[in-house]
Amino acid sequence: MIVTEKESWLGMIFAVHGTTMESIWPRVAVVFLWAILTTVVAYFFPDRYYTLTMGPFTVVGLALAIFLGFRNNAAYDRYWEGRKLWGRMVNVCRSFTMQINTLIDDAVASNAQTSDEAQNQRLHMVRLIICHIHALRHRLRDTDAAADLEEQLPDDNQLPQDLAQDNVPAAIADRISRQINSAWRSGRLDTFHVPLLHNCLTEMVDIQGGCERIKSTPIPFTYSVLTHRTVFIYCFALPFGLHDTVGIFTPLVVGMIAYIFLGLDAVGDEIEQPFMTDDNDLPLLQLTTMIERNVLQLSGCPDEELPDPIQPVDHILI
Amino acid sequence: MIVTEKESWLGMIFAVHGTTMESIWPRVAVVFLWAILTTVVAYFFPDRYYTLTMGPFTVVGLALAIFLGFRNNAAYDRYWEGRKLWGRMVNVCRSFTMQINTLIDDAVASNAQTSDEAQNQRLHMVRLIICHIHALRHRLRDTDAAADLEEQLPDDNQLPQDLAQDNVPAAIADRISRQINSAWRSGRLDTFHVPLLHNCLTEMVDIQGGCERIKSTPIPFTYSVLTHRTVFIYCFALPFGLHDTVGIFTPLVVGMIAYIFLGLDAVGDEIEQPFMTDDNDLPLLQLTTMIERNVLQLSGCPDEELPDPIQPVDHILI
Amino acid sequence: MIVTEKESWLGMIFAVHGTTMESIWPRVAVVFLWAILTTVVAYFFPDRYYTLTMGPFTVVGLALAIFLGFRNNAAYDRYWEGRKLWGRMVNVCRSFTMQINTLIDDAVASNAQTSDEAQNQRLHMVRLIICHIHALRHRLRDTDAAADLEEQLPDDNQLPQDLAQDNVPAAIADRISRQINSAWRSGRLDTFHVPLLHNCLTEMVDIQGGCERIKSTPIPFTYSVLTHRTVFIYCFALPFGLHDTVGIFTPLVVGMIAYIFLGLDAVGDEIEQPFMTDDNDLPLLQLTTMIERNVLQLSGCPDEELPDPIQPVDHILI
Amino acid sequence: MIVTEKESWLGMIFAVHGTTMESIWPRVAVVFLWAILTTVVAYFFPDRYYTLTMGPFTVVGLALAIFLGFRNNAAYDRYWEGRKLWGRMVNVCRSFTMQINTLIDDAVASNAQTSDEAQNQRLHMVRLIICHIHALRHRLRDTDAAADLEEQLPDDNQLPQDLAQDNVPAAIADRISRQINSAWRSGRLDTFHVPLLHNCLTEMVDIQGGCERIKSTPIPFTYSVLTHRTVFIYCFALPFGLHDTVGIFTPLVVGMIAYIFLGLDAVGDEIEQPFMTDDNDLPLLQLTTMIERNVLQLSGCPDEELPDPIQPVDHILI
Amino acid sequence: MIVTEKESWLGMIFAVHGTTMESIWPRVAVVFLWAILTTVVAYFFPDRYYTLTMGPFTVVGLALAIFLGFRNNAAYDRYWEGRKLWGRMVNVCRSFTMQINTLIDDAVASNAQTSDEAQNQRLHMVRLIICHIHALRHRLRDTDAAADLEEQLPDDNQLPQDLAQDNVPAAIADRISRQINSAWRSGRLDTFHVPLLHNCLTEMVDIQGGCERIKSTPIPFTYSVLTHRTVFIYCFALPFGLHDTVGIFTPLVVGMIAYIFLGLDAVGDEIEQPFMTDDNDLPLLQLTTMIERNVLQLSGCPDEELPDPIQPVDHILI
Repeated sequence: MIVTEKESWLGMIFAVHGTTMESIWPRVAVVFLWAILTTVVAYFFPDRYYTLTMGPFTVVGLALAIFLGFRNNAAYDRYWEGRKLWGRMVNVCRSFTMQINTLIDDAVASNAQTSDEAQNQRLHMVRLIICHIHALRHRLRDTDAAADLEEQLPDDNQLPQDLAQDNVPAAIADRISRQINSAWRSGRLDTFHVPLLHNCLTEMVDIQGGCERIKSTPIPFTYSVLTHRTVFIYCFALPFGLHDTVGIFTPLVVGMIAYIFLGLDAVGDEIEQPFMTDDNDLPLLQLTTMIERNVLQLSGCPDEELPDPIQPVDHILI
Repeated sequence: MIVTEKESWLGMIFAVHGTTMESIWPRVAVVFLWAILTTVVAYFFPDRYYTLTMGPFTVVGLALAIFLGFRNNAAYDRYWEGRKLWGRMVNVCRSFTMQINTLIDDAVASNAQTSDEAQNQRLHMVRLIICHIHALRHRLRDTDAAADLEEQLPDDNQLPQDLAQDNVPAAIADRISRQINSAWRSGRLDTFHVPLLHNCLTEMVDIQGGCERIKSTPIPFTYSVLTHRTVFIYCFALPFGLHDTVGIFTPLVVGMIAYIFLGLDAVGDEIEQPFMTDDNDLPLLQLTTMIERNVLQLSGCPDEELPDPIQPVDHILI
Repeated sequence: MIVTEKESWLGMIFAVHGTTMESIWPRVAVVFLWAILTTVVAYFFPDRYYTLTMGPFTVVGLALAIFLGFRNNAAYDRYWEGRKLWGRMVNVCRSFTMQINTLIDDAVASNAQTSDEAQNQRLHMVRLIICHIHALRHRLRDTDAAADLEEQLPDDNQLPQDLAQDNVPAAIADRISRQINSAWRSGRLDTFHVPLLHNCLTEMVDIQGGCERIKSTPIPFTYSVLTHRTVFIYCFALPFGLHDTVGIFTPLVVGMIAYIFLGLDAVGDEIEQPFMTDDNDLPLLQLTTMIERNVLQLSGCPDEELPDPIQPVDHILI
Repeated sequence: MIVTEKESWLGMIFAVHGTTMESIWPRVAVVFLWAILTTVVAYFFPDRYYTLTMGPFTVVGLALAIFLGFRNNAAYDRYWEGRKLWGRMVNVCRSFTMQINTLIDDAVASNAQTSDEAQNQRLHMVRLIICHIHALRHRLRDTDAAADLEEQLPDDNQLPQDLAQDNVPAAIADRISRQINSAWRSGRLDTFHVPLLHNCLTEMVDIQGGCERIKSTPIPFTYSVLTHRTVFIYCFALPFGLHDTVGIFTPLVVGMIAYIFLGLDAVGDEIEQPFMTDDNDLPLLQLTTMIERNVLQLSGCPDEELPDPIQPVDHILI
Repeated sequence: MIVTEKESWLGMIFAVHGTTMESIWPRVAVVFLWAILTTVVAYFFPDRYYTLTMGPFTVVGLALAIFLGFRNNAAYDRYWEGRKLWGRMVNVCRSFTMQINTLIDDAVASNAQTSDEAQNQRLHMVRLIICHIHALRHRLRDTDAAADLEEQLPDDNQLPQDLAQDNVPAAIADRISRQINSAWRSGRLDTFHVPLLHNCLTEMVDIQGGCERIKSTPIPFTYSVLTHRTVFIYCFALPFGLHDTVGIFTPLVVGMIAYIFLGLDAVGDEIEQPFMTDDNDLPLLQLTTMIERNVLQLSGCPDEELPDPIQPVDHILI
């Protein structure tokens, strides 16, 4: 995600970074050169040049605008749903931690040692929650979760087995489920409060499933193809529509219109998959680190054991 | 669903497969030939030819774009709701499995055998969940669920009876409900935890109902007819609007506009029913197999007993 | 609802039935005759004829398209919300039935007779659920529920009293509530499971309220009036805008544009009230009969006691 | 709300009542006179008259249509959300009443008198529910709730105190909460069923908050100003755009376009605040009276004690 | 938020305050001067002046209107979601207070003093709720919460520690969670009612997370840049499109169109971040003070201890 000071209006007009300009300039350039070529041809061989007038371009241009609008809308909805899911993840991790810290009791404790045991179990559960979010982040970005999970659970025997499953976050969730069970069976968690903790876990599993859904199911291929193709045809046919009225300014006008349509087309592409590390994608690393800090603070971890918050590098948070 | 590597922009421009091109080329061809015919007639008998100018086509064209946009929006909402329902199915199956595995107890067991019984019951319930999703998939695709269900529940006496009911997934859900009941009556499931499992089952029944709703209630027939008909009239009348300005390029321009409008019209048709096996439909077989693998792994099934994940064939997942 | 085989594209172009054509042809005809009249006048008295050019019609036409789009959107949302409510009704009836059949116990039974009593109570509750949906259907369609309810509950003393209340479905829901209470008081239903059944009942009451809301609150009257009136003015003024460019083809073009705008205007009217028995309305009779079959099958009713499923008559399900 | 027989299409074209015509005719008249003035000036001093052509008006007109569409959409969403909130209020009042009537027990009763006490408490709670909806209605319409509340709770000592609080419905909700508490403490309500009743109460408080939110937060002021102002500029500049093509028909065309845009602008204003007593607003009095009748009937009140249902006066329900 | 009497239509046309006019007039002025410059140049050197005609401006102008519409839609959704979240906060604070006041019991009390203790604990919890909303407001507006929190909790030892955490509202929520726990452990709160209070707390944490999400994740940077840039290009190129038809009125027409597009562009910017103190932002201070008054009144605080409600200053609520 791009992090800027509330930029001035003028500043945004001339910004380059994170504005899709990097990815679309070759296309704009090609269209521009094509417009120059046709204009030159039309200038020297006016008899052989046929104009199409703006009529068809008005109809198709507005149809195009409506469909780019539809596709960008769908892409933005995916982006915003992704953000909402991670926002819910922030919430559920906080609530889950608070509930673990208060509902799991020292009750069985008859001496200091058992009380330590309860405290250890609580911390272990919180660590598993942290593992779940890191595992989910790695799954969504197709990276390897092993290092991050081993840092949370050093000397954990079961971890290699979990990492070998198809779905690592689900395996971690299963372990949290077993911890809830063990807390209940050992009498530290009241029978009536098991559903509360299970609701939090179910919420985490739901969020995970929601993120996987967004990742695995793009906007239907035909939509993207049709939009791309219409933009392509439109830009390359446009000089023929403009030449008779705009004359030698055709390349300039075509270039500007191409920039606008190709830009809007590319924006949709970029935020359609909001979990990757493109400039405009969601800052999952920053979010997971923030959650980690939050839940550890709520569990009474001293500040020096917390990871450092992620800072934007060159205005980009990842 | 079409699975592609993140294709290059140029690659998408020239793609054919899965782009509705296969289904609409005859219509585009007919419109193209019609445009040639009228252009030829107009060329040789200019006096007998009346032009309509672009005026009416601008108005109708934009109205058409707005309504195609509305219909595609509705179709995409159905598609995405279908995907959301199956995403929730993934989630609930995972949560349900975790809860079955921890909340159903060996408690009544006084010896190893009874503990096996509990384990058998748990696995039986998980198998019933798998049956439910397979049965739902077959119901949505109008295929026969018998083979898949028998594979999950070999030598099951009640299965033929379930398969004979109107609604096989509902019959399976009813069996899960009876299993919850039996676990509770036998003392393996705590009274207070019955609602947790019933909530999962209710969620499964809700998802099933949602899928059936999408399948059984298409976009109102009048909408589809009106849109199809307007596209049809528009494309066939278009040559008369273009000839006086575009001249002999009329067929080319008409062909391109027809491709765009007929394409957008056809996309809506294709994803309106997202559960079938068209190129852009949802990959229910892949999803159900993934769920099956997930819940069996969570129940401790060894890897060799799991079904193989479904791979795309020729870039298509079904 | 119109039920068709997945009709061919061409088939839909030439369909008549269920396409609003029946209801709007008089309006289209009047506009067409008016266009002929003005064209004839303009042909013989060209000096007295003033043209308005297409300019104002482009602006108003697109504004009109946007507002027809808005109104159709709102109407479709009502239609789809109505369908969703009935889909939820299907789900909750299935879940409710499963819960009644497993959670209400024979426990008090010390002999076969009391076990029969429990079975009778369960079946009675399921019959009350069926009564609720039939009563709701009749309420939404302003028909008399008495016959259908008496068929479900023959020799029921309280029924006449229920039928006399303002709101019959609410009276039936109240009886279900009292049955839950009696099952609990008699010890057949666990105290902790009362909320489960009450949640199902609350869901049924919510769905009923949702349907009543859609029925009783149409799209604000001003919206409909403004849209109708703008379409009316537009169609009757259109000949003056077209004559100077289209000449004697004016009636044809006016007729086509009028068909499109009047058609889109009429579609909204038709599905705005989705619970009636128009061609494109929801098939409530088919849905309620399906629910009745489903819940009776889940309760073990033999097939011969089930009502026959409703079949489409002349492609229409009601 | 305007209640009409399903009016004929023609009837709606010529309706006046409840169509914003009453509120906008002065504006339309001024624009019309202005158009006549400019047309007369242009007719007598053609040299001094500058035309702007339709070009800019097409662009601005469509932008305007899109933003009027956006604002009307937002206003309609508020209207429909308000209706949904009151629909949920209908539902929760019914469910709450059913639960009060079945879950609050005579159990402590050892003689007829105590059973009467339980019945009195139940009826008192139902009366408090009725008070809540009446108090909410008065709060939303800025009227005084005292009379209606005193009718429900004659000789109630605490009522004056409640009426003195900032938020009367919240004070009533607090009393319901205390009644739930007292029923539980006295043993008439099971500990496990307290959450059920509290959920109903929470739902009522949520609905109240939702209504207050709609009332207190209009569509941002800038939006309304920008839309009003653009319509204003557009209508007054329009004659200059039309004169050169439409000539002396300018006032007529300007009048029609002004009617359409000013009408759509005014519709948004009218339904933006859906709880007042304008023609198109929600019939809160009818709804609250219906709820009152419903819950009293469900509590066994004889018909002669029920308030009469509210009937539309001159086709208007308030 | 701007609070006005229902202003007359004419009054809104000529309003200045809170209409983005303050922030955009420099931009409009620059465009206006530019249009004068080009018009003068075109007047004196007509040969050197090239016109672009309105054709391209119609296409781009409508595309622009659609995308401004999309962006304003997204901004308004954020604004309205922010308002909904604070509306839910109002609701949950009221419900939570009612539940604390009735469910936390004096039960352990054997004498007046212990009853006082219970009352103190209840009031302490309500004060913590008030702290939470004030802390959240300060967090959303990047101001310091210390003063407001110290006023609620004078002489509180733990407060400095809470204020030192990353996330002050989360720290306060954690304290509420510990208070619920302590009430339960001490026997004042029934085991079965712990989930009720925890649900309220979870709702508060969810609302907090939702607000933080809106604050931390703006509309993707590329969208804003593309829209700003297209408006910029459009306004500066517009004189070349208008000159040949509008002549010396070009600056006037350009100025009006620029005002409309720049205004719509700026509205989106202003309400995109709804929690700040701009004219059109949400009145968080008024809302939190209202909640504080409400919950204290519900807890029986005498009127003289309540804070004064916030009044609009110069028609602005903050």
